[in-house]
Amino acid sequence: HCDLTGWWENDLGSKMQVFGVDSEGNFSGEYYTAVSSAKKPIQPSPLVGSQHLDEDGQCTFGFTVNWKKFSDSTAVFVGQCFNGDNAGEVLQTSWLLREKVDSQPNDWKATR
Amino acid sequence: HCDLTGWWENDLGSKMQVFGVDSEGNFSGEYYTAVSSAKKPIQPSPLVGSQHLDEDGQCTFGFTVNWKKFSDSTAVFVGQCFNGDNAGEVLQTSWLLREKVDSQPNDWKATR
Amino acid sequence: HCDLTGWWENDLGSKMQVFGVDSEGNFSGEYYTAVSSAKKPIQPSPLVGSQHLDEDGQCTFGFTVNWKKFSDSTAVFVGQCFNGDNAGEVLQTSWLLREKVDSQPNDWKATR
Amino acid sequence: HCDLTGWWENDLGSKMQVFGVDSEGNFSGEYYTAVSSAKKPIQPSPLVGSQHLDEDGQCTFGFTVNWKKFSDSTAVFVGQCFNGDNAGEVLQTSWLLREKVDSQPNDWKATR
Repeated sequence: HCDLTGWWENDLGSKMQVFGVDSEGNFSGEYYTAVSSAKKPIQPSPLVGSQHLDEDGQCTFGFTVNWKKFSDSTAVFVGQCFNGDNAGEVLQTSWLLREKVDSQPNDWKATR
Repeated sequence: HCDLTGWWENDLGSKMQVFGVDSEGNFSGEYYTAVSSAKKPIQPSPLVGSQHLDEDGQCTFGFTVNWKKFSDSTAVFVGQCFNGDNAGEVLQTSWLLREKVDSQPNDWKATR
Repeated sequence: HCDLTGWWENDLGSKMQVFGVDSEGNFSGEYYTAVSSAKKPIQPSPLVGSQHLDEDGQCTFGFTVNWKKFSDSTAVFVGQCFNGDNAGEVLQTSWLLREKVDSQPNDWKATR
Repeated sequence: HCDLTGWWENDLGSKMQVFGVDSEGNFSGEYYTAVSSAKKPIQPSPLVGSQHLDEDGQCTFGFTVNWKKFSDSTAVFVGQCFNGDNAGEVLQTSWLLREKVDSQPNDWKATR
């Protein structure tokens, strides 16, 4: 079945390591982003998330990356695992990035 | 400062309980959704996430809800805490819902 | 049935005027945004779009706002008309804002 | 500069033809989608939109596709033109698809 444990890399060159998935589907890990709009230098950032444990290897999953080491933003990713033919397992994900804004009237522009 | 511990309710009538936030900002809890597109009856669903621990009470946060008890979908939420004037703390969030699809060519329609 | 012709206002205080809807459902108009992340002063901005002409008054629609008068961004809105009980017609919309970026590697951050 | 007039094809095999862009940046055309979640057979669908006319060829743009010929949905696309090195012009886009729902309480699930 699908198990997110291990290293993954995306098209932009960002990498993540999932340390291990427990019997509930919860996991933690570290995210090494290749891109940033923050002013401080990028640092590896902690992630926590959860996956389904379907037998068919096509489970959906989600996780949160806390960029606290170099920014006040938070990102969430949601996606699904697929069994690529030759390419091994592939993760398809979508994401939202929340930037901190100073007041509620600026909330409209906080999320990419 | 901002602490997500406790009960929260949104405009749609969904509720969540955050059990407690550790010193890293990680938390777990349970989500009681008021809405669903699944066929099985709704059940309380586990969540895991992470928040910043900024002193100003306007931290950003994110969390993952695993709907495994009644569906094969996963949702992620990302947002920010605000100090409402009379209303107490308010959470502004955005979300993505990933539904399981049977193959990669159907990936385009998997995320709401 | 649903007809977008006229004035509409959203929660943020932005207003739009739809000049008229032709027999194909196409329309043009002007958008008066209350919020902006551009440096130049806000100006009324042209919009073009299209709506369905369903008899039940709950048509979906979409439109594009070209902010060329004060920025190099473009926004799109998509939504549906509802017959509110006392409140008259209500439009529910979602939007994406595309900001210009200088190169493809920055594409990841261009859309809010 | 950037001019959307002509034929474009995306990764999913969908194609669109932009008939011509007027001096304001407005255009119309036809969209031939390769994917659909509707029950009726796919048909070419009218689009209307608007683009910036920047000299640098990296303009942002947006357009609305009205799927009225086979569904009650509407889609909006927003993006930017880039000058690929060997590949000619490339469009990077994001989209939202609005499906019709029967009442406002179902609005949460109407947009992909």
